[in-house]
Amino acid sequence: MDAAELYHERTCIACHGAYGKQPVMDEYPKLAGQAEAYLLTQMKDIKNGYRTNAHSVAMQNVMHLVSDEEIAVLAKWLASLSE
Amino acid sequence: MDAAELYHERTCIACHGAYGKQPVMDEYPKLAGQAEAYLLTQMKDIKNGYRTNAHSVAMQNVMHLVSDEEIAVLAKWLASLSE
Repeated sequence: MDAAELYHERTCIACHGAYGKQPVMDEYPKLAGQAEAYLLTQMKDIKNGYRTNAHSVAMQNVMHLVSDEEIAVLAKWLASLSE
Repeated sequence: MDAAELYHERTCIACHGAYGKQPVMDEYPKLAGQAEAYLLTQMKDIKNGYRTNAHSVAMQNVMHLVSDEEIAVLAKWLASLSE
């Protein structure tokens, strides 16, 4: 599965919208064009419970679907998207 | 003090770079164009210690400089900037 498929399959699109640019709520961040290292750290910290503030705790209940390898693929892809 | 001055005066620029677009490290997020509500929540959660993951704990040691009113001014300004 490529990154764009993963982004759909692992439900990221449900909150962050198409290409990480259209969050469904203003409380969710835009992701497109953020630095790869930042995206990688945030996804891992949310998955591992190091970040649980605000709506990130909801995301933690999705991250069991996403392997660390897939996190890396998603981070690289999202960082590559124009903002 | 207007938002742009606050952004300098309260040292935000030190990590997030000019206009919140050029983080000095890939571990810090770009801020320009993020949704106002998201920015507001994250700044408050970091200030209040609800978010301490990765480098946000360093930011907590800056946020004592920033009042809640100033947080609101910064969030509005950053959200208004083109990405």
